[in-house]
Amino acid sequence: MNRRTFVAGAAGALGAGVLKGVTGVTPSLAQEAEIPVPPDPTRVQGPPASLVGSRSPFEQPVRLLHPRLTSSRTPLQDLLGTVTPSDLHFERHHGGVPLIDPDRYSLLIHGMVERPMVFTLEELKRFPSVSEIRFMECAGNFPRNAGEETTPQQICGLTSQSEWTGVPLATLFREVGVLPEATWFLAEGQDAAVMTRSIPVEKAWDDALIAYGQNGEALRPENGYPARLFLPGWEGNASVKWLRRIELSDGPFMTREETSRYTDPLTGGKARQFSFVMDARSIITHPCHPGRVTPGWMEVRGIAWSGRGRIRSAELSFDEGATWHRADLQEPILPKAHVRFRYMWRWDGEEATILSRTTDETGYVQPTQRELVQARGVGTSYHLNPITGWRIRPDGTVVYRTEVWG
Amino acid sequence: MNRRTFVAGAAGALGAGVLKGVTGVTPSLAQEAEIPVPPDPTRVQGPPASLVGSRSPFEQPVRLLHPRLTSSRTPLQDLLGTVTPSDLHFERHHGGVPLIDPDRYSLLIHGMVERPMVFTLEELKRFPSVSEIRFMECAGNFPRNAGEETTPQQICGLTSQSEWTGVPLATLFREVGVLPEATWFLAEGQDAAVMTRSIPVEKAWDDALIAYGQNGEALRPENGYPARLFLPGWEGNASVKWLRRIELSDGPFMTREETSRYTDPLTGGKARQFSFVMDARSIITHPCHPGRVTPGWMEVRGIAWSGRGRIRSAELSFDEGATWHRADLQEPILPKAHVRFRYMWRWDGEEATILSRTTDETGYVQPTQRELVQARGVGTSYHLNPITGWRIRPDGTVVYRTEVWG
Repeated sequence: MNRRTFVAGAAGALGAGVLKGVTGVTPSLAQEAEIPVPPDPTRVQGPPASLVGSRSPFEQPVRLLHPRLTSSRTPLQDLLGTVTPSDLHFERHHGGVPLIDPDRYSLLIHGMVERPMVFTLEELKRFPSVSEIRFMECAGNFPRNAGEETTPQQICGLTSQSEWTGVPLATLFREVGVLPEATWFLAEGQDAAVMTRSIPVEKAWDDALIAYGQNGEALRPENGYPARLFLPGWEGNASVKWLRRIELSDGPFMTREETSRYTDPLTGGKARQFSFVMDARSIITHPCHPGRVTPGWMEVRGIAWSGRGRIRSAELSFDEGATWHRADLQEPILPKAHVRFRYMWRWDGEEATILSRTTDETGYVQPTQRELVQARGVGTSYHLNPITGWRIRPDGTVVYRTEVWG
Repeated sequence: MNRRTFVAGAAGALGAGVLKGVTGVTPSLAQEAEIPVPPDPTRVQGPPASLVGSRSPFEQPVRLLHPRLTSSRTPLQDLLGTVTPSDLHFERHHGGVPLIDPDRYSLLIHGMVERPMVFTLEELKRFPSVSEIRFMECAGNFPRNAGEETTPQQICGLTSQSEWTGVPLATLFREVGVLPEATWFLAEGQDAAVMTRSIPVEKAWDDALIAYGQNGEALRPENGYPARLFLPGWEGNASVKWLRRIELSDGPFMTREETSRYTDPLTGGKARQFSFVMDARSIITHPCHPGRVTPGWMEVRGIAWSGRGRIRSAELSFDEGATWHRADLQEPILPKAHVRFRYMWRWDGEEATILSRTTDETGYVQPTQRELVQARGVGTSYHLNPITGWRIRPDGTVVYRTEVWG
């Protein structure tokens, strides 16, 4: 897995020309990369303590870049726990990553409020804060008609999980005195796209944050440094990054991104706008493509999540969905968070398919691809969360279980 | 805080000679460091998506290096949540950080077992795994007689928290068939010190892991890559890193490190050996030194942890311990884990002292320095967990509340 990861990462970054040993005889990675490993590490004094650590040279996880370099995907298949290392969190931006001086940062809140106010970053940090482990997912996190050579990173690498720290937006809304007639607010970023979205005020009273921390430290630049909106469980683009302005109003603002892009076409010429919530979904991360298994017992592992609350169950099917077997969920099961599931399965060496589906605490059950197409038609490319899985061939190789979408 | 952090970090790394603007007039950090920030980021297309992210140039958290470079401390005062970024996790090693090829790694388990076995890393990863958020703390995580210019990083930066992933040691012990008469095991590392410790077998049946994952990815080299022992709640040195051998026996091995170093001298010429558990402790991380506050409401923030289980309460005192006020604990409250506490406090501008203490689910209450000295004498330098706090001077500057130890 490590070698494959490294090679796949290098392929994404540098093109296939630099690769050696991808197939056939594979020399050890140390030989490939000429890492000077001592024959006996106990005979060599190692390097001393350091100001900031680095990964082992044998571990080179990388995000998968979109050809237009507007997004990158988390290597879900290489991750072991539930937290995504900050430098591997997926990213999606519309005008690149702005460089913002935190000393010059400010957030204006105005419109239908009693007292329009400007908050500096230091002022935001003085308010009572919260830290919560939550997932973040892009609305476009599913490739229709993907082929057999598809990895979890390609299927749903636009979801990641962090411990987010910030001030509840409700605290700031009480500070400025949001008027009763205000039902929506505009969130505006200070990137080159000046990204804007309209958000219902209820989300602020519920659980929206102005986040400035991620996994214990400051936000990473591509995730909105120094401060962003964070709407737990809602599509990532609505959690406007590099946030500079919030305007309260009595209706949505119908901005460019939310009308031209983040609207879901349905059947019969209809379209669904403001479909914020990310529905429940799951992915098996072991085994997966590329990978190879041997007959016998193995732990099938994966993650499940729902924008509506806690995961209630994750199930696996080995007979194309006729019967389902309940997997173990790993505690703590947090709301609007990736939850890891595990299931011991014995592969008998025959061709097999493994599928996963999840159910959240509202009773919502992850749908099949067919159910999604029946409900939405074939034109929808956002908010797709079908049951997916893997085929295991008799030689043990694992490929994506393809489905024709349209 | 950011500028102070950067400057303090630079001071630790480079010496004070390079510093500008530490006191008195402080130019903006962008000017100091000549970071080319555009006047209006919305007018400049930012850099595109990247394979691996980096921190903002305005954020440079660093570990604090021991003068002999045998350890480094986590910048607790700069962290916002409960997870420690992997590259800022504290480290302590006795022979430097070995470079180990994961393809050549193996773990031998032998001694009082039915079937001695050698496990490769891939084999370890095939077993059912767990992922758990737990703290790790060095037994020597308290400097006696620290002065007023002391930061949380200096007081207790030898504790950090990660999501650890690995195989329960109990699973491997069942695999090799540990004999009933085996009561202890030796854990041996493959660093240049060949670190060894004796561990009671009960810890393996309870919750010990062979960990290969940290915060979602592979262990960092200084934390034991590719695999280490992890003993939740116990002193860090017993969680032997770069683990290569486990030997089962019917008694402790009395190895060099556990006899010469990790034994606690007590009063009356006695000594306490095998004092594995880290007792409950807490630290206020805001406000703290160096820092400055202004009169009015502020959120006092900190972390509490206990090697014995869950934190039951964290309390603050503003009158040198005469009365205590219960802080809010942040959910989820996990066993043997850092828990963040928060308390709204109004500073009236007079000189003040703030102390924190915690109580765990066993009823253990964090002791005062005086209680510790009465129980252990003045020679003990390991397993010290006294109540600590900060003095706020009338001008708002914050210093460590010193106590003479001996």
